[in-house]
Amino acid sequence: MNPLAIGIDLGGTQVRAALVGADGTLLARAATRTDAAGGPRAVVQQIGQLVAEVTAGVDPDALAGVGVCSPGPLDGSAGVVLGIPTLPGWVDVPIVAWLTEALRLPVVLENDGVGAAIGEWRFGAGHGLSDFVYVTVSTGIGGGVIADGRVLRGRRQLAGHIGHMTTAPQGETCSCGNRGCWEAQASGTALGTLARRRAARTPSSTLAAHGAALEAPQVFAAARAGDTVALDLVAHEAAELGVGIVNLLHLYSPERVVLGGGVSSGFDLLHPDIKRHIRSWALPPFRDVPVVAAALGQNSGVVGAACLVLPG
Amino acid sequence: MNPLAIGIDLGGTQVRAALVGADGTLLARAATRTDAAGGPRAVVQQIGQLVAEVTAGVDPDALAGVGVCSPGPLDGSAGVVLGIPTLPGWVDVPIVAWLTEALRLPVVLENDGVGAAIGEWRFGAGHGLSDFVYVTVSTGIGGGVIADGRVLRGRRQLAGHIGHMTTAPQGETCSCGNRGCWEAQASGTALGTLARRRAARTPSSTLAAHGAALEAPQVFAAARAGDTVALDLVAHEAAELGVGIVNLLHLYSPERVVLGGGVSSGFDLLHPDIKRHIRSWALPPFRDVPVVAAALGQNSGVVGAACLVLPG
Repeated sequence: MNPLAIGIDLGGTQVRAALVGADGTLLARAATRTDAAGGPRAVVQQIGQLVAEVTAGVDPDALAGVGVCSPGPLDGSAGVVLGIPTLPGWVDVPIVAWLTEALRLPVVLENDGVGAAIGEWRFGAGHGLSDFVYVTVSTGIGGGVIADGRVLRGRRQLAGHIGHMTTAPQGETCSCGNRGCWEAQASGTALGTLARRRAARTPSSTLAAHGAALEAPQVFAAARAGDTVALDLVAHEAAELGVGIVNLLHLYSPERVVLGGGVSSGFDLLHPDIKRHIRSWALPPFRDVPVVAAALGQNSGVVGAACLVLPG
Repeated sequence: MNPLAIGIDLGGTQVRAALVGADGTLLARAATRTDAAGGPRAVVQQIGQLVAEVTAGVDPDALAGVGVCSPGPLDGSAGVVLGIPTLPGWVDVPIVAWLTEALRLPVVLENDGVGAAIGEWRFGAGHGLSDFVYVTVSTGIGGGVIADGRVLRGRRQLAGHIGHMTTAPQGETCSCGNRGCWEAQASGTALGTLARRRAARTPSSTLAAHGAALEAPQVFAAARAGDTVALDLVAHEAAELGVGIVNLLHLYSPERVVLGGGVSSGFDLLHPDIKRHIRSWALPPFRDVPVVAAALGQNSGVVGAACLVLPG
């Protein structure tokens, strides 16, 4: 019997669960809005319900275990979430112990950026590579690094905090309190903020109609329809992404950079300018490194989480 | 009999050789001005002479081999230097084959930043650590990364090109042709250039007397004597170093950052401001990471080169 694994992607907005086969196939999915107000115990209950949904009718003996991806910082070996900025009350939560007790299955905890990187490594756009960087660009910027055939960990497993590298010391203020973090310059949030600023100054743009609801997806749609302000915003976003990606090339020397997260819905629009930026800013031996879209889309996280407990 | 190893540090200005014992002891040293005009064959002859000097009277059976550190890019596994920007004619030089033939000893080639990191790892300020970054700040900025107990390599062994991460997109022009590389902002060369600019505008500073000869060492000397312009330059240099070091913390999560190269002669002056910068710019879990001076000083390279062939 093929072992199956359960992957959980715990986010500030949604909790997702999936039942994943040994070949990476998504056999069942379920998701719910994160009960942020209810605190950790309520969310652990939600996870229990989602697990029940995706495993309905499945032979318990076929289940290898549960992998959980969570925003950090966390202590994977202790199985404890140390804090989640977007979820109040999530401080020192022993989620692995709680879930092990609730589900009676082995549970493994991993940083969400690293988890998604592992998903793309095993079943997605990083398959077969020894060196690649997964970058997720949405509310913030996160990711995970595969280097020399292994997950790059570093002290306290904190390597790969790519969203908080400074790419513009005089730049935008970041949620972390500093200025010019890559995340503050190039996340979906940053693109949305800039778009609203520009739209307010340019009533002739189709973007202006969205008012306060203007976010990255509307920018991409307007760019596809030929709106010049939107096209300019896309070029700006590609350049900001490019600065950070070039740094990742120089620092990690990946064979490939994989872009995921909400902003990758505009990947086709962003890609030409990102490549142009790399060709002019990277040192010659790094200029041919491909930048590709995540192959698992929004499922990198749940699939990667499942990989944590799937047999090799 | 204790095996001994020969380390060669090939630089654009100097070629250095050392005989190193299994415990890292420097038993003999020799150096000469690099015969840049003579081309690769002449320099290989120089290396042969230096090796003869440091091994005079040594039993050939005690020699484990020759490790060579060279500026890159290079192909370590093929034993070929692909190009050295500061040495004309060094394109596709099969230095390992040439030296093996000339010296009749095993020869291993390594990038100079990585080599020095290995020296500090085995016998210096990185001893016993699983994760640390060695940064050499002199004409340029280079380095090497130890991550999860191994040298970080990446595609084509090109990881760790830390000097060419962009830390200021609108910044100084770099030798690589781009703008705002860390090297262009914070190397000894950058500090010297800035110092000459400031001195020209501030004839009252003791720095002004140096004219075109003003470089980083004179800035440190003047700062130690209390010159306010020099002190301001030191603060500026520390801030520029700090931006890059904070990025290294976020990206690699080292247990320690080790600073070597010429500029580290001002380490005691730079350190307080570097630490201050880290405390205000790094994410909380990274703020306590120590920044220390290289323990082997100018010998990190030759000792590291010797480590390449010293038995484990």
